[in-house]
Amino acid sequence: MCRWMAYRGQPLPIELLLYKTDHGLIEQSRHAKLGVETFNGDGFGLGWYTGAAEAPGVFRSLLPAWNDRNLRSLAAHIHSPLYLAHVRATTGTPVQETNCHPFRHENWLFVHNGAIDHYLDIRHDLILAIDPAFFNVMEGSTDSEVMFCLALTFGLQDDPITALERMAGFVEATGRKHGIEHPLQMTLGISDGERLYAVRYSSIGQSRTLFWSADAKTLRELHPEHELVELIGDEDRAVVSEPLGDLPGVWEAIPEATALIIQDGPDEQRAFQPRAPA
Amino acid sequence: MCRWMAYRGQPLPIELLLYKTDHGLIEQSRHAKLGVETFNGDGFGLGWYTGAAEAPGVFRSLLPAWNDRNLRSLAAHIHSPLYLAHVRATTGTPVQETNCHPFRHENWLFVHNGAIDHYLDIRHDLILAIDPAFFNVMEGSTDSEVMFCLALTFGLQDDPITALERMAGFVEATGRKHGIEHPLQMTLGISDGERLYAVRYSSIGQSRTLFWSADAKTLRELHPEHELVELIGDEDRAVVSEPLGDLPGVWEAIPEATALIIQDGPDEQRAFQPRAPA
Amino acid sequence: MCRWMAYRGQPLPIELLLYKTDHGLIEQSRHAKLGVETFNGDGFGLGWYTGAAEAPGVFRSLLPAWNDRNLRSLAAHIHSPLYLAHVRATTGTPVQETNCHPFRHENWLFVHNGAIDHYLDIRHDLILAIDPAFFNVMEGSTDSEVMFCLALTFGLQDDPITALERMAGFVEATGRKHGIEHPLQMTLGISDGERLYAVRYSSIGQSRTLFWSADAKTLRELHPEHELVELIGDEDRAVVSEPLGDLPGVWEAIPEATALIIQDGPDEQRAFQPRAPA
Amino acid sequence: MCRWMAYRGQPLPIELLLYKTDHGLIEQSRHAKLGVETFNGDGFGLGWYTGAAEAPGVFRSLLPAWNDRNLRSLAAHIHSPLYLAHVRATTGTPVQETNCHPFRHENWLFVHNGAIDHYLDIRHDLILAIDPAFFNVMEGSTDSEVMFCLALTFGLQDDPITALERMAGFVEATGRKHGIEHPLQMTLGISDGERLYAVRYSSIGQSRTLFWSADAKTLRELHPEHELVELIGDEDRAVVSEPLGDLPGVWEAIPEATALIIQDGPDEQRAFQPRAPA
Repeated sequence: MCRWMAYRGQPLPIELLLYKTDHGLIEQSRHAKLGVETFNGDGFGLGWYTGAAEAPGVFRSLLPAWNDRNLRSLAAHIHSPLYLAHVRATTGTPVQETNCHPFRHENWLFVHNGAIDHYLDIRHDLILAIDPAFFNVMEGSTDSEVMFCLALTFGLQDDPITALERMAGFVEATGRKHGIEHPLQMTLGISDGERLYAVRYSSIGQSRTLFWSADAKTLRELHPEHELVELIGDEDRAVVSEPLGDLPGVWEAIPEATALIIQDGPDEQRAFQPRAPA
Repeated sequence: MCRWMAYRGQPLPIELLLYKTDHGLIEQSRHAKLGVETFNGDGFGLGWYTGAAEAPGVFRSLLPAWNDRNLRSLAAHIHSPLYLAHVRATTGTPVQETNCHPFRHENWLFVHNGAIDHYLDIRHDLILAIDPAFFNVMEGSTDSEVMFCLALTFGLQDDPITALERMAGFVEATGRKHGIEHPLQMTLGISDGERLYAVRYSSIGQSRTLFWSADAKTLRELHPEHELVELIGDEDRAVVSEPLGDLPGVWEAIPEATALIIQDGPDEQRAFQPRAPA
Repeated sequence: MCRWMAYRGQPLPIELLLYKTDHGLIEQSRHAKLGVETFNGDGFGLGWYTGAAEAPGVFRSLLPAWNDRNLRSLAAHIHSPLYLAHVRATTGTPVQETNCHPFRHENWLFVHNGAIDHYLDIRHDLILAIDPAFFNVMEGSTDSEVMFCLALTFGLQDDPITALERMAGFVEATGRKHGIEHPLQMTLGISDGERLYAVRYSSIGQSRTLFWSADAKTLRELHPEHELVELIGDEDRAVVSEPLGDLPGVWEAIPEATALIIQDGPDEQRAFQPRAPA
Repeated sequence: MCRWMAYRGQPLPIELLLYKTDHGLIEQSRHAKLGVETFNGDGFGLGWYTGAAEAPGVFRSLLPAWNDRNLRSLAAHIHSPLYLAHVRATTGTPVQETNCHPFRHENWLFVHNGAIDHYLDIRHDLILAIDPAFFNVMEGSTDSEVMFCLALTFGLQDDPITALERMAGFVEATGRKHGIEHPLQMTLGISDGERLYAVRYSSIGQSRTLFWSADAKTLRELHPEHELVELIGDEDRAVVSEPLGDLPGVWEAIPEATALIIQDGPDEQRAFQPRAPA
């Protein structure tokens, strides 16, 4: 189990949502409320964009997030309009930076919460399906990174949601060929530096929790005098594994088997349907 | 809060009590039952003797113990008649190897669970009282290490329990001079390679938990057919922050304000009374 | 031995001088030319200001700088008008983040190359002289950090050069009391977020190398068509343990026993004269 | 470039050859004489057997070996009749424990110095050839670990030298298919806990240096009064990337394209001839 969050909107200091919010991600690294485990101490990562065209910055560490002074300092000094952060609880693979999220390829970032069931039994088949062009994106040993490489293989850079549906379909087909009943459990946060994509899906139909913030207008009506709410701009959105704070109405659960596209103008929400390989 | 354990007896693979026992120390690093915090992920350490006369080996790491493969491997391959292990939850000082227990000076090892209340307010005064002969034993920044240096200053190598009582008395006097009501909270595990010393004490009279194993004869009568119990020799004893396993009668709480001396022949239990500086 | 660099001027991506210059600091971490050792692999640190009034950001790591991907990423994404970077070769104290430079207190940053000779013999006396108000700035175990705490004790925040002269005088007096002939060897880089201070001094009168960049006008006359030179603004200056690149005339050696004050308008250069304690 | 050493013989404290010999491996980590690089600071590893039938212990770290206190302590406390140690200088893959040697599978250990030329260009093809039964031995991202997995695939556990020849033949054939002229450069140290295997080979016919110690009888005749030589038993042998100490006659260069089998009774030396895939 892991916890992650993503933000897209006006440039804000990263610490605002990571540290300065009730039950922010760093607090969740110690005391998660909705997860399988109550803490996530097997490394962390932060990926952020500073300009739309550029490759994002990535800071990853194999240490727990909760006492990391470098992360504290960076989060205070970096303003970003688009970032993803992740705290890890390994499901068995080694604790090392290359197993920490986000994974990066060019301008793309990818974080995952969940697991491929019985991963080691099908790892060989999954890795064999990675396109040689993306093979060396793989530097670690997690299921998550292989999911990213497969999504790239299936066209993530051209048509993200379709590529993710093909990735999920391929993982499910491969798993079932090996007798795994519910191969895939995932919430995903992905960005190309322009849009923020969030997916909630699991083969069993009981996915890990995922929430997104209500739109600014709703928030201002609900909590007209709240300090943080005042800051929120019309395009600002956050996606989180579990709610920050406990203001009613701020966080909406993302439904099962759903993909979100958070972008300038109206955001988009659609059904997420794994596509089995032909 | 931290958790620690110590063992003295026939040489056994260290993994036996660290990993292969129900609720061993490594499990406690993730899921402590009796502590203030439920996990201890800010580093760990292991100190072990391989022969009585020798300086002990020490392995410390700033990573959490629970997924550390090096510790797993060492614990499987090292047999030792006397060792101390510690998992750390920092009360504020940095996560670094020199802040991990055990601390070592020549043939002495020292582990601590607890804290000096408002430590940073009296750190200056405590450090000034360290004898120059032991000043460079101090390599980190914890209250625990300063307690060790003070105990050395007060004669740990000659008369351990008296030195610890003088250390505790000095910490309490210094704290109270600064208006700290309950300056000291501690359980201690200490060894010179011959004896194992354990102390449970706190200024407030409500000390962190500490247990020791019943003697072998009692254990064999209680659990005649238990596999691990059969292994236990007449001189084998363990001291633990919280019980391993849940066999009734195996673990006895060490009373408040008590020092134990575990040694060849009859062990010794006596009142622990801080000695105020003259 | 260590290597460090500092920059003050127009905001530039940190990577420009750290990575994208011939023989930049990261290259010096592997292949120093002028140092006692040819490599500096015992950790590194970067401290940067993003706005004059603010506390600086600090990123430190106990790993070698040369393969650190986090540093690479940060240096590419952070623009700063004032920063200090340091690669460490320990003279004996442990490899840990709190022993990496820069040290920070409020808006002040401090880096050091050199050593206090026979430091462990006089550490006790030096630490005893730290004002309790600055005692908890000390989190590691280096001579450098104690020099910083002493400089704070002697008034760094009010009159930096005088405070550094008093610190140097105190270290020398203390060393000589213990029979140490040449107690102090140092180049220092210090900033409060406004000015950049650089000092080159050693008791023996043969200090570690230190250079600063010629003024922009000189550089433009010398190398009118050079790409980097074109970028340089009138107030831009760098200070380095050893020259970056090999363009003639770019780097001037800072004389023995000299302090520089780099600031808006004319910079200042003056003799550095340790002040013995009264 | 890396440096490694291996020892097989009477049980000795590991520190003897690692630290207490002139120009031992830890000294080589800082100041190699015969290597491409003069230092090897990208992690290290130690694998040791304590009993023939058992899986070996492994201690690996991503920190440089030269200041590692844990390694110092372990090397002083562990006696072993058979061990391999390795200091790493990465040729590009990340600095992480799973990229440190030795690699382990069951009772087998594997260390490598050298590289597969243009590894990233043929990594995909090499990984595809790993037998699924050994696929999850792969936890890191080095060429060395893939060589180990391929050797296992080709029968390392049944006929080690033949399997290594098939591995080398396969790497060369794959490389040449991609237009790589000299695909393989390697010295290898391998053990199953009984025998110690050493191989020196490169496609170009100019392999990295490798030496083994002369037999005990020769050593005693050459240096009858030398302290360490007196310790040496008839079956004791070491293999090293570069000689320890400078006693003449102690170290013999292992010839190009040669495999050694060090075992009870007479050791074996034979030509090493890569076997191209059918």
